[in-house]
Amino acid sequence: MPGNSFGQLFRVTTWGESHGRAVGCVVDSPPAGLELSEEDIQKELDRRRPGGRLASKRKEEDRVEILSGVFEGMTMGTPVSMLVWNRDARPEAYEPIKDLIRPGHADYTYLAKFGVRDWRGGGRASARETVARVAAGAIAKKLLGFFGIEIVGFTREIAGIRCEIDVRRNDLSKIFEMAESNPVRCPEKDKAELMARKVEEAMKRGDSVGGVVEVVARRVPAGIGEPVFDKLDARLAYAVMGIPAVKGVEVGSGFSCARMRGSEHNDPVILKNRCIAFETNNAGGILGGISNGDDIVVRAAVKPTPSISIPQRTVNVRTMEETEIVVKGRHDPCIVPRAVPVVEAMVAICIADFMMIQGIIPRTLLDF
Amino acid sequence: MPGNSFGQLFRVTTWGESHGRAVGCVVDSPPAGLELSEEDIQKELDRRRPGGRLASKRKEEDRVEILSGVFEGMTMGTPVSMLVWNRDARPEAYEPIKDLIRPGHADYTYLAKFGVRDWRGGGRASARETVARVAAGAIAKKLLGFFGIEIVGFTREIAGIRCEIDVRRNDLSKIFEMAESNPVRCPEKDKAELMARKVEEAMKRGDSVGGVVEVVARRVPAGIGEPVFDKLDARLAYAVMGIPAVKGVEVGSGFSCARMRGSEHNDPVILKNRCIAFETNNAGGILGGISNGDDIVVRAAVKPTPSISIPQRTVNVRTMEETEIVVKGRHDPCIVPRAVPVVEAMVAICIADFMMIQGIIPRTLLDF
Amino acid sequence: MPGNSFGQLFRVTTWGESHGRAVGCVVDSPPAGLELSEEDIQKELDRRRPGGRLASKRKEEDRVEILSGVFEGMTMGTPVSMLVWNRDARPEAYEPIKDLIRPGHADYTYLAKFGVRDWRGGGRASARETVARVAAGAIAKKLLGFFGIEIVGFTREIAGIRCEIDVRRNDLSKIFEMAESNPVRCPEKDKAELMARKVEEAMKRGDSVGGVVEVVARRVPAGIGEPVFDKLDARLAYAVMGIPAVKGVEVGSGFSCARMRGSEHNDPVILKNRCIAFETNNAGGILGGISNGDDIVVRAAVKPTPSISIPQRTVNVRTMEETEIVVKGRHDPCIVPRAVPVVEAMVAICIADFMMIQGIIPRTLLDF
Amino acid sequence: MPGNSFGQLFRVTTWGESHGRAVGCVVDSPPAGLELSEEDIQKELDRRRPGGRLASKRKEEDRVEILSGVFEGMTMGTPVSMLVWNRDARPEAYEPIKDLIRPGHADYTYLAKFGVRDWRGGGRASARETVARVAAGAIAKKLLGFFGIEIVGFTREIAGIRCEIDVRRNDLSKIFEMAESNPVRCPEKDKAELMARKVEEAMKRGDSVGGVVEVVARRVPAGIGEPVFDKLDARLAYAVMGIPAVKGVEVGSGFSCARMRGSEHNDPVILKNRCIAFETNNAGGILGGISNGDDIVVRAAVKPTPSISIPQRTVNVRTMEETEIVVKGRHDPCIVPRAVPVVEAMVAICIADFMMIQGIIPRTLLDF
Repeated sequence: MPGNSFGQLFRVTTWGESHGRAVGCVVDSPPAGLELSEEDIQKELDRRRPGGRLASKRKEEDRVEILSGVFEGMTMGTPVSMLVWNRDARPEAYEPIKDLIRPGHADYTYLAKFGVRDWRGGGRASARETVARVAAGAIAKKLLGFFGIEIVGFTREIAGIRCEIDVRRNDLSKIFEMAESNPVRCPEKDKAELMARKVEEAMKRGDSVGGVVEVVARRVPAGIGEPVFDKLDARLAYAVMGIPAVKGVEVGSGFSCARMRGSEHNDPVILKNRCIAFETNNAGGILGGISNGDDIVVRAAVKPTPSISIPQRTVNVRTMEETEIVVKGRHDPCIVPRAVPVVEAMVAICIADFMMIQGIIPRTLLDF
Repeated sequence: MPGNSFGQLFRVTTWGESHGRAVGCVVDSPPAGLELSEEDIQKELDRRRPGGRLASKRKEEDRVEILSGVFEGMTMGTPVSMLVWNRDARPEAYEPIKDLIRPGHADYTYLAKFGVRDWRGGGRASARETVARVAAGAIAKKLLGFFGIEIVGFTREIAGIRCEIDVRRNDLSKIFEMAESNPVRCPEKDKAELMARKVEEAMKRGDSVGGVVEVVARRVPAGIGEPVFDKLDARLAYAVMGIPAVKGVEVGSGFSCARMRGSEHNDPVILKNRCIAFETNNAGGILGGISNGDDIVVRAAVKPTPSISIPQRTVNVRTMEETEIVVKGRHDPCIVPRAVPVVEAMVAICIADFMMIQGIIPRTLLDF
Repeated sequence: MPGNSFGQLFRVTTWGESHGRAVGCVVDSPPAGLELSEEDIQKELDRRRPGGRLASKRKEEDRVEILSGVFEGMTMGTPVSMLVWNRDARPEAYEPIKDLIRPGHADYTYLAKFGVRDWRGGGRASARETVARVAAGAIAKKLLGFFGIEIVGFTREIAGIRCEIDVRRNDLSKIFEMAESNPVRCPEKDKAELMARKVEEAMKRGDSVGGVVEVVARRVPAGIGEPVFDKLDARLAYAVMGIPAVKGVEVGSGFSCARMRGSEHNDPVILKNRCIAFETNNAGGILGGISNGDDIVVRAAVKPTPSISIPQRTVNVRTMEETEIVVKGRHDPCIVPRAVPVVEAMVAICIADFMMIQGIIPRTLLDF
Repeated sequence: MPGNSFGQLFRVTTWGESHGRAVGCVVDSPPAGLELSEEDIQKELDRRRPGGRLASKRKEEDRVEILSGVFEGMTMGTPVSMLVWNRDARPEAYEPIKDLIRPGHADYTYLAKFGVRDWRGGGRASARETVARVAAGAIAKKLLGFFGIEIVGFTREIAGIRCEIDVRRNDLSKIFEMAESNPVRCPEKDKAELMARKVEEAMKRGDSVGGVVEVVARRVPAGIGEPVFDKLDARLAYAVMGIPAVKGVEVGSGFSCARMRGSEHNDPVILKNRCIAFETNNAGGILGGISNGDDIVVRAAVKPTPSISIPQRTVNVRTMEETEIVVKGRHDPCIVPRAVPVVEAMVAICIADFMMIQGIIPRTLLDF
């Protein structure tokens, strides 16, 4: 419980500071016999990478290297260690503000906890740490894909513009394609344009905006998740709330349940192809903490990027005097689109873990 | 990770079925030297107990018994085992619907997972399990009280009626007193009455309503919570989302952050009595997953009680035919007020655990 | 990690003090669909119970009660909570020596750790705690029996008298029968008599003697155990060394390996019924921390009972003066025979856990 | 619990295969404020490195690189990731025997578990993995040194030659110096020579020999270790039995306790400088699983190296026929001396972990 690991049988440990030598992770351990290449990881990292007109100007290639656990193109059931070197680290940009507490960041809290902090960017608290989560999530997604499970995320809302797509009536591959076709990752074209405009406006003002990410996992079998503390939704909330900038997590109907009546909220139980199914999905695919076979639906509220170039009130911790700060550097005016693959990764890790705990994913995909 | 334990150094394991012999928990372990009596536990259980005109008619005294870990009125650093016998269990009420899947309940998912389920009430999935959480939480609250920390919850919203109290400007003891003075646990008298009316209307229709619980922890020192997966907010989300009927969890600004700008959302850093403080508290007392010394604010969306007496579509799992169900029994038309002490308990357990991990709460409160 | 739990997917949490109200455990959780009765547990507890001319005179019936997790004679996949009331507790016997540190006991170390100790017997450190282990182990043994695995223990050595039986050439059921037929649990009749005589001699002198327990698990499939820290032998050592009075643990050849050559120690690999097998079993059924299909053989060195009525030097912690102590009470002059079912229990728990982690034991023994 | 992590608050995760790209570990996390350099790690790795006339001819420089967690020469409370590249890997040496099960190795068991194995050396099961343990242990030792604790190991026995040094009457620094001055790491010069001769004789025959490693931890404060499963000795046994080639672990009197009487075995309690102390140390510094302030003494039985060039019977898993194997390659005829720093490392990790759990080692060594 020192905090840098997540999962039980599919367990991810991440390490690295934003402007240190590298960031990486150990995945202990995917089942043996899974075909796995650096390319499988790279394609997910590329989705998370900065770039485009709405994003940070930090130029990182983010080339992943697999250091262990794969032999002759296949996992062996041993830990997969991966790393990405930090190439475009520019710690000197942070030198002038190293004694100033950046509002909305973890500067003060790390100091309070550890008595010291890596002032080069957010150090360990930087969103750069999510590179490692996405790398681990790529393995989880590949593994789940082997069992027919799809995991797709998109931007549900940015700066008050809400996408109204009904996921349950669409192919996930189509939603994926639509979302990936624009820089805000919204699967509705017109809304995507409105969102992009809001982000650009904020950028011009030196300000930032927030939003909501939604991730859907389809074809998760009924029966995963554990009573009573390790409910599937509890672990998903744990996984997703731990992503930098997330302030809220909901499943299925989420906060809207507060204004519904039981007779509306309960999903009627029906037969579909002679199997139990549900007419609606307010449950978000989870009842009593256990999957019911329907789409797992998770939403995360992402706060506006705290790094803004508008002057803010703060304190200098060396002099212990109040002062002002202007945060320069290379920041995204809206982190929501880049958070999409990160939330997908955490959802995938969480589900892969439960699939192994339930024994649906075996320890080896091979016969001896 | 079999699911029935929560916490690392303050670790709670619960057990028991709704209509089995008893429910209980083991707390492994509060620090040695804490004065502890059954009365300390009982007063919290009494808050959770059914009763009042808006609640279930199940009549349980819920008398707690401490079986271990306390000697001469004091904890010894060894596990505290507690149990509450089930006295008013009436399993026969469930006999007629034992083959029917109750919509909104875990009946189907437990079957899918375990191949068997305890059809007497919700069995292990019943909210009766929260008796054990509240008992464990009572120890956590007493322990935190020893270190000056207060934890108070109340109803923020029921059926669309929202209480607008500004917690930060009020004594928690006053909020507590106001909330406990009415059956919906809302600290604003007029809103409390509106809420109560909504609940009664739903009850008359055989329907139910949902709402939002808010819990505040005051005087938590800065520096607790762990990077990067075991962030304080991540663990709080984990703890609270695992409570039956919770569909969403948020911290501080929560989902409203999605519509804020960075310049509004960032809490300005100021000096207060020569210490670092924050002008506003959108952070909900947590930055980068670590406490900042301000109020920790957690909100949980609670769905409308799934047990309603309005007929609903469902499936009989013996005959595998579609049918209708009417859920009789002794159910709350709104679970929100009774969820308040449960959310408090989980927040307290979570914070006590982190205080021990950080070493602020030592393993013994005594000197040898 | 507060210390009172063991196991990952088959997880046992114990609680209770020697002279408190009860001792008990929570097993989280055996797979659903296992037939289980209190009688299954009781028969193992009866083996551990004091009694016979060579044992403590404490008269405990040790009747187990199952409080949860079993419905209609079958486990449900939820936690099984069990307790045994302490009936013949006589704390007053300890009153006169409550300020004296008993040599060889945990009195001083509990004080050093917790600043307080339960002076009624050993409190939490008493071997009475092993009641709970044996109860949990009874479930593990029943579960493993369902999969054809036998676990049998016996006394290998007491007071220098060593039993030379070759386990590999015998039916375990026969060894069990022979061992259970005498009070020292040694499967060789003549050695059993010699051992008994040594114990009686020690008893007469007010002294005590030690010995070695051996436990064999047969028909454990190849492939359980985890690299690299959670090796099967590492977890067995962890499980067994944690039993009160155990000072050493070995697997297979154990300490005798130190005096062997590689050419003797390596077990030749052979074919038996066209399957891989081993000519000898110095490995004790484990290679690289993973089971190889042969007998798992574990031995534990058990120290002489520390409670002796011969005067010993000690310190009074109230006056902080040196003094003498004579430990009266109802103690076994040799704990080895009663340790046999305890070591069996821990070995069974350990193997059941790994069988679940490997997915060989599924989460339910039923089809829905 | 996927097996590649050890520890709770000082948690080590290792990764890497013997002939893969690298081996490494993540330490999550040493407290903030510890001065730490690659040189601190390197000096321990150099002790473990192959070399000398009695050891493997594999030539690895084993240069460690610290990739995270250290900033400006100091730990930050975040994970320390370290790696060592494999430079002198020669997998081709193993090609001819890739289908043969090497007796005494994990070849068959890995196949049984995972359906696949890395046949280049032992892969993950190779003792090369202990590079990562020693690197992590170096941090633990440095940390414990900060708190005045010394950890020193040496060879107690090889091939029947037993060193009789009484550790308790010697400075550990002197024992260290004497042990490090000869290739078998025995602190008695004459015994060291006899041992070396035995090893050379075995080497000439293409055979190997075993022995016993002893590690002592001095000045560990009383009060660390947790009841009842996470006893200090239980966790030490867990840590040490997981080291490749270890077949037995004992604490204090160890297996010799089986032949002692209680009156001999109990360590008399005395006053020393007005504090509680013990006249003898059969306890090995641990009573009831908790440290008593005396020397912690752990011994590990190390089997003879399984790789020998004498022909052995085995099976070819491709043809499933019995055959013979001669294991060539670069192997130590006796692994005992090189196991010394590995056992030290595991003991140090274990104690550092408990010191953090007890709160004696705080989360930061700095004041903010």
